Amino acid sequence: MAQRESVSDMNNTQSAGSPDLLQNLRNALRQFAAERDWDQFHSPKNLAIALNVEAAELLEHFQWLPDAEAAAIPPEKCAKLREELADVLLYLIRLADKLNVDLAVAAAEKLKINATKYPVHKARGSSKKYTEL
Amino acid sequence: MAQRESVSDMNNTQSAGSPDLLQNLRNALRQFAAERDWDQFHSPKNLAIALNVEAAELLEHFQWLPDAEAAAIPPEKCAKLREELADVLLYLIRLADKLNVDLAVAAAEKLKINATKYPVHKARGSSKKYTEL
Amino acid sequence: MAQRESVSDMNNTQSAGSPDLLQNLRNALRQFAAERDWDQFHSPKNLAIALNVEAAELLEHFQWLPDAEAAAIPPEKCAKLREELADVLLYLIRLADKLNVDLAVAAAEKLKINATKYPVHKARGSSKKYTEL
Amino acid sequence: MAQRESVSDMNNTQSAGSPDLLQNLRNALRQFAAERDWDQFHSPKNLAIALNVEAAELLEHFQWLPDAEAAAIPPEKCAKLREELADVLLYLIRLADKLNVDLAVAAAEKLKINATKYPVHKARGSSKKYTEL
Repeated sequence: MAQRESVSDMNNTQSAGSPDLLQNLRNALRQFAAERDWDQFHSPKNLAIALNVEAAELLEHFQWLPDAEAAAIPPEKCAKLREELADVLLYLIRLADKLNVDLAVAAAEKLKINATKYPVHKARGSSKKYTEL
Repeated sequence: MAQRESVSDMNNTQSAGSPDLLQNLRNALRQFAAERDWDQFHSPKNLAIALNVEAAELLEHFQWLPDAEAAAIPPEKCAKLREELADVLLYLIRLADKLNVDLAVAAAEKLKINATKYPVHKARGSSKKYTEL
Repeated sequence: MAQRESVSDMNNTQSAGSPDLLQNLRNALRQFAAERDWDQFHSPKNLAIALNVEAAELLEHFQWLPDAEAAAIPPEKCAKLREELADVLLYLIRLADKLNVDLAVAAAEKLKINATKYPVHKARGSSKKYTEL
Repeated sequence: MAQRESVSDMNNTQSAGSPDLLQNLRNALRQFAAERDWDQFHSPKNLAIALNVEAAELLEHFQWLPDAEAAAIPPEKCAKLREELADVLLYLIRLADKLNVDLAVAAAEKLKINATKYPVHKARGSSKKYTEL
């Protein structure tokens, strides 16, 4: 119930029409690439690779940590983690741009799909995949 | 120059204070997890794994494509790609939330760092890493 | 035909019983970990993470290369690539060991499965997934 | 000490000259690709992507498991895991072949490098990266 409301909130935000943060970042990245003549390298395939490389750099920080400790990242690692998170977002935005996907709309739609795949009464307290629920 | 302007645009957006799209999604995901009692599974380590798994599912679509063809994804694949892009964004937002990182601020900062690492006159037309420029 | 023969060759090799290279490496890695008291970190989950991190470091070398150029890796990169390939193999052997999987047998079996999934007359010249052939 | 011995054992194995398991698999994969006219798709870049995709499918099985539970994989998952491990090995062998890297030699060399990077007296009981030891 509450879930459905928050999803519809997001639709409102999208239809608001004012340029949002993701669009600003997308535009900044377009300009960044254009100034450096980087569009020749930014095929969707290459950007998907870059996204994976950055995601793995993020993962590396958790490599040998017990799950519990992972919650308490030492502060000196936090700055590096912030950068890795940002790298993933920037490549994701760039890739979505090249594929003409509106990330905000796609994310709101996916949340709705997830709410259907994982209804509260079935998914509560379970980490099973929806195909096994 | 133009680059610098667009980066500062983003700072303005962030400081605007009105809840933006990333914050709305973060809140929706918090609620989604709370309703399903999923916080027990959402350690940063597990979320970083999930992020990588989704990023690889995205990459799989480009696996055997020549770079050029990758630009022209067949429409039936597009819907699947949209979902994978959304999955990456949703896990990224969730992970950032658990690490207390403001993704929007982090991304704007990283763009500035990248502008310093890759000055236009050095990086133009080159795909080299900044350490090799 | 020829395919079937080469797969059966491999079965012969496995059943030969003399310790092979993969077993030697597995034993060396067991000893390496024991000497350093590293078994506490080498859960299957952590090793699977490490494997992914190393695979992504390998991928990073191809990140911005056109497919064609990728065939011609500059020699100074080759030494690094060799190390990344080795890292992937070492973690793979270690993970298989912890899961009690005989990699050699598993690989020979998978080749047979692949031969069934991708019969020559259907798969010839096609990069489609077997589910789409 | 013992470590050094086991590494030198491996060198002996390699220099034995009789075709080993990795070479048999390499040959079987060459034939498999030739019969299907797949060399056109098997650029090092594409194989590196495929390797990452398979590694992530392996990782997915551990996604939401606590570290401890991960040791006890349910038997129905084991068959799937075996296949994923095999897939990683097969792509790794294929990629090494395309890059003219002898995986066995590379792995033995890397083990020696690791023994230098992680001397027992420094690395014992620690999960730190060698650069932080």
